[in-house]
Amino acid sequence: MITPLEWRGGRIRFLDQTKLPTEETYVETDDPEVVADAIRQLAIRGAPLIGIAAAYGVALSASKLQTGSSNLASALQRTLDMFASTRPTAVNLFWALNRQKRILENKADHSPEVIARSLLAEALKIHEEDRGMCTRIGEQGAGLLSSDAVVLTHCNTGRLATGGSGTAQSIISTSWEHKKLKHVYIDETRPLFQGARLTAWELGRLGIPSTLITDNTAAFLMQKRIIHAVITGADRITLNGDVANKVGTYNLAVLAHYHSIPMYVAAPSSSIDFEMEDGKDIPIEQRSSVEMLQVNEKRIAPPNTQVFSPAFDVTPGSLVSAIITERGVFRAPYRDAFNAVHHEDVGVKSGIA
Amino acid sequence: MITPLEWRGGRIRFLDQTKLPTEETYVETDDPEVVADAIRQLAIRGAPLIGIAAAYGVALSASKLQTGSSNLASALQRTLDMFASTRPTAVNLFWALNRQKRILENKADHSPEVIARSLLAEALKIHEEDRGMCTRIGEQGAGLLSSDAVVLTHCNTGRLATGGSGTAQSIISTSWEHKKLKHVYIDETRPLFQGARLTAWELGRLGIPSTLITDNTAAFLMQKRIIHAVITGADRITLNGDVANKVGTYNLAVLAHYHSIPMYVAAPSSSIDFEMEDGKDIPIEQRSSVEMLQVNEKRIAPPNTQVFSPAFDVTPGSLVSAIITERGVFRAPYRDAFNAVHHEDVGVKSGIA
Repeated sequence: MITPLEWRGGRIRFLDQTKLPTEETYVETDDPEVVADAIRQLAIRGAPLIGIAAAYGVALSASKLQTGSSNLASALQRTLDMFASTRPTAVNLFWALNRQKRILENKADHSPEVIARSLLAEALKIHEEDRGMCTRIGEQGAGLLSSDAVVLTHCNTGRLATGGSGTAQSIISTSWEHKKLKHVYIDETRPLFQGARLTAWELGRLGIPSTLITDNTAAFLMQKRIIHAVITGADRITLNGDVANKVGTYNLAVLAHYHSIPMYVAAPSSSIDFEMEDGKDIPIEQRSSVEMLQVNEKRIAPPNTQVFSPAFDVTPGSLVSAIITERGVFRAPYRDAFNAVHHEDVGVKSGIA
Repeated sequence: MITPLEWRGGRIRFLDQTKLPTEETYVETDDPEVVADAIRQLAIRGAPLIGIAAAYGVALSASKLQTGSSNLASALQRTLDMFASTRPTAVNLFWALNRQKRILENKADHSPEVIARSLLAEALKIHEEDRGMCTRIGEQGAGLLSSDAVVLTHCNTGRLATGGSGTAQSIISTSWEHKKLKHVYIDETRPLFQGARLTAWELGRLGIPSTLITDNTAAFLMQKRIIHAVITGADRITLNGDVANKVGTYNLAVLAHYHSIPMYVAAPSSSIDFEMEDGKDIPIEQRSSVEMLQVNEKRIAPPNTQVFSPAFDVTPGSLVSAIITERGVFRAPYRDAFNAVHHEDVGVKSGIA
């Protein structure tokens, strides 16, 4: 069992994913800043897992502050701000932080102990909910694949990226369990090789047959009709179905479209940004040039090489065949489908309040 | 001045391109097997340069064999076979070896000294011809770009890949000299990073402004309308205009087509395989998994990872906007244009014979 992140007796324990696959190193900390830094460095990564980690981070901060802090609310606001600034693109982060913020507001009149306990309860709930969502995403998506399916995936969307069995990868593993899947091709996913380092490692552990390719080779496989479907995750989905995800996803969407191959995107509904009409306003994180120019601590390019390294790209909803969430399989026009779900939620919440 | 390969007083001196950009190491040898191995290992690379190196290699073999070889013809045939087996995809290699074979046939009755001298003269001629072809490719292609052009290129097609100023890169440097070029984006070109290691290094030396991207980022730039044209080289071009080139070229061609950006392919006419109707019969070299799984001598993927690593892909002529050779700019239907050139050549040769 792969456990990339867990709450352990007042501390957060996480797997340092930057060291995979050569080292399986766990870090245990009671310092929220260590957790924030791990998110920045991609030691903790994957949109859903980032949200979970930030929620635990806020709980950790509260549990440390409960003894002696005269101004708990403002101290926790600084923690919320710190986590909000770690990575700009994935919406799950802000969604999780908003849930913790709501707890803070609702419990404002309570003791620091109660606040801390409530924040931890909410973080555990977010984690547990994500586990369930992963399972349901797998079930919803497995139905889309034909038998003996050969799929191509990008980056890492598995246990390492979520609180459960993954998003796109949950569809892959569920299809494998249902004996519908034949083979997985994995984009190595430059610059940080999440496909090579993480997905190849995870699929190996799950016993699912896979082949690693350079990102450049996807088109070749599609041309040869070897790939039946592309499945990726998402860091943010806007109302019109535009998808921000690891750079290279848009590349795959164009290729899939050209070769008439379905392009599926899997994510928990917390990745849908109901406040954003389309993808043009999604902030795209730029990564450091070092990540591109150095591999295994050694340079691959001459000094002073200028680099452009966006972490994500935006795939227009028109190129996405279906978006699979725990709530079901959505197809274009996405705005109508998403709005229906959103209004349902707001309705339920109003009912409770 | 970058001199990747030269004949120096009875020996071949070449730059070991596998060590760039961190080390500029030259190897001097009188052993044809060292040259063949350098081609296999990509220490000498680029379709035109491989042809030149093989031609020199045959001359080297003849100059070593001239003292004492009782059966020069069969020994040289073994040398031809050795070079022919180094890399299967680029046609320039076979074209250069055929020229040396013709010399052998024409000079069969002469002394070993004359044969060796003739083979060297032919190799020097092939080298010199390539230098001129590079210059003319640059002149022919520069006219295709609009002013302030921003182009994207893949792999390395410059001085390191040819006997002169390059193929696609000759168009880039000529456009730069004509003040028509604004900026070059370079695909890093996995798995061997020829873009990062070689093209970034060459363009830096030439003072041409460039930015390195992961191969995954090309689609992002096209979506943002930042790229005006894609320019690549070719390892083999068939009669219908299909182009075998470094894996990832087909990817770029599909992306360029989708974004209505011209896709230019530049190569000497020796890259045209007049014997081959279309690209489906081009042998595609598979590279060792180690090249993909190790970077800077360290693994990036778990043990036992299965890999699919074709060195080249085939872009259908229908996706190529124009093919630029030293003979001019060809556009579809390529078969008619190529056949006209070929018949012209055969006609000229008949006239001489």
